[in-house]
Amino acid sequence: MSPSLSLGDVMAARGRIEGSVRRTPVAEVDPAALGVAGGPDPFWLKLELLQHSGSFKARGAFNRLLSARESGHLTSTGVVAASGGNAGLAVAYAAGVVGVPAEIHVPTTAPAVKVARLAALGARVVQEGTEYAHAQESALASAAASGALFCHAYDQPEICAGQGTLGLELAEQVPDVDTVVLAVGGGGLMAGVATALAGRARVVGVEPETIPTLHAALAAGEPVDVDVSGIAADSLGARRLGSIAFEAATANDVPSVLVSEAAIIEARERLWRECRLVVEHGCAAAVAALVEGAYRPDPGERVAVVLCGANTDPRDLG
Amino acid sequence: MSPSLSLGDVMAARGRIEGSVRRTPVAEVDPAALGVAGGPDPFWLKLELLQHSGSFKARGAFNRLLSARESGHLTSTGVVAASGGNAGLAVAYAAGVVGVPAEIHVPTTAPAVKVARLAALGARVVQEGTEYAHAQESALASAAASGALFCHAYDQPEICAGQGTLGLELAEQVPDVDTVVLAVGGGGLMAGVATALAGRARVVGVEPETIPTLHAALAAGEPVDVDVSGIAADSLGARRLGSIAFEAATANDVPSVLVSEAAIIEARERLWRECRLVVEHGCAAAVAALVEGAYRPDPGERVAVVLCGANTDPRDLG
Ligand SMILES: Cc1ncc(COP(=O)(O)O)c(C=O)c1O
Ligand SMILES: Cc1ncc(COP(=O)(O)O)c(C=O)c1O
Repeated sequence: MSPSLSLGDVMAARGRIEGSVRRTPVAEVDPAALGVAGGPDPFWLKLELLQHSGSFKARGAFNRLLSARESGHLTSTGVVAASGGNAGLAVAYAAGVVGVPAEIHVPTTAPAVKVARLAALGARVVQEGTEYAHAQESALASAAASGALFCHAYDQPEICAGQGTLGLELAEQVPDVDTVVLAVGGGGLMAGVATALAGRARVVGVEPETIPTLHAALAAGEPVDVDVSGIAADSLGARRLGSIAFEAATANDVPSVLVSEAAIIEARERLWRECRLVVEHGCAAAVAALVEGAYRPDPGERVAVVLCGANTDPRDLG
Repeated sequence: MSPSLSLGDVMAARGRIEGSVRRTPVAEVDPAALGVAGGPDPFWLKLELLQHSGSFKARGAFNRLLSARESGHLTSTGVVAASGGNAGLAVAYAAGVVGVPAEIHVPTTAPAVKVARLAALGARVVQEGTEYAHAQESALASAAASGALFCHAYDQPEICAGQGTLGLELAEQVPDVDTVVLAVGGGGLMAGVATALAGRARVVGVEPETIPTLHAALAAGEPVDVDVSGIAADSLGARRLGSIAFEAATANDVPSVLVSEAAIIEARERLWRECRLVVEHGCAAAVAALVEGAYRPDPGERVAVVLCGANTDPRDLG
């Protein structure tokens, strides 16, 4: 069986989305400032929170839309997605730039502020059912009926390949990086970056203890449902790991390290206090793995941490 | 008369403070996102808000302290400064790292949160008089009495040379930059960067209409007192331009462009909304010059804007 995702896919994605996404910079920081005891010294933060729509999800969204346009599958009917979070924002943003309508399905329980943000990007927001599973069903049904392009939040090759472009950029910016630490929800980011860096750098997946999708999948030998709760659920709250992500994790030996809620909150506060960076909790989780010692680099190991998003309310900082 | 500040001073500063300050990254952004109409495409943001203590002032502070240590003028009596703002924070931070006591003089009107922040960095805070002029006098008197090293907020060669290291870094990061846009208070940052980039790039100084120190000095042919008010006064609120800054501005043809309060507020909000960067108003002023059109680059002009600080309360964003 050939893999669902290859380095070639990621390289093709890079060429396709160039000019549509930002090349985000990397900051070198001293571990002590962030409370990372015993190194690594220094380490790198990939500032992907500067990306259009506030997270790396813009990479996958553009790759999905532009691939479909190339193959004639993107029509004036536009695109459909189910997500009140960063995936939905990114699809709405990309659709606006590409010039097709976006229909985003969210549950009736989605916060008004998220609905407003999607609408501000020009998306039509459909509120359906009380859980994301319902919104997902209604999105799929709508796409099937209208012929619009369905954009999954993580489990589509074009989405994962788009996220992987972050890995190619990072390898240019920190050529001798050994390890890339990143947060895992449905696993699209992890799948893309692990595929992009296969044989060049190791990827470590970080998950809140309260949403261990990768951890549970590795234990069970296949993606399985987990309970979803906690402070990072709005971005990392996928119910199960994607199949592309499972394949990429096992092919590339991506471990899952778990972090506590307290460590996530502390990492977010430290990023503001010591680096003046505001990030969302799902993003702080990756830094939390170093702060809490859930991942302990070897001496001299060159570690980069992906700061993947900042769709957050900064009012609880400062 | 030989100039007070030379490229050699800035280069020496760079070697001296290397390892003590962060090399801050540069982000490439599309002007449309920030509302810069017809503007340079793309342009660069120097993310100096990531610097230790939250602003570029750490560069000058380290250079002042480490120069004095080299020449035997830094004793265990430590350092004294007058500032409840970024200069004071930077001196307190640098003194802590270098391992000498810091005494920071602020007026009794300084906000409790600033006093607490200085104290948290280990500084002794002296509250004296109701205006900064009083705090400045008491700081000078204290330094004269104790033999501690006095650190000015901008008008000392070591301070200006330290700030200039930002310019050397930027020229490496954006080698063909034509123009560097930055905020001016007392003018230490402007003096350092203009000296660092003399003959290589042009510097444009940005000031709030409510604190036109450079503007007034250029009009009068010498630094003169101005009224100080407005939303950016906590960082840009020097009463008059420094003498080193005046010399550097005239030698390097640095113009002053003035921005409105409304444009500063809008630029700060846009930086959060479009780039997820939280900055203070004094920093947003530099971006405001492009947003408002107070500075209009030529087609093809390669412009970098210094995001110089983020010691701000993020609670009014989001
Ligand atoms: C900020 C942020 N980080 C991480 C993730 C997890 O991404 P993935 O589902 O590709 O694992 C998400 C998903 O929305 C996100 O928004
Ligand atoms: C964030 C910020 N920007 C700009 C300035 C102005 O610097 P200078 O006084 O060197 O002109 C200051 C001074 O405190 C500052 O804190």
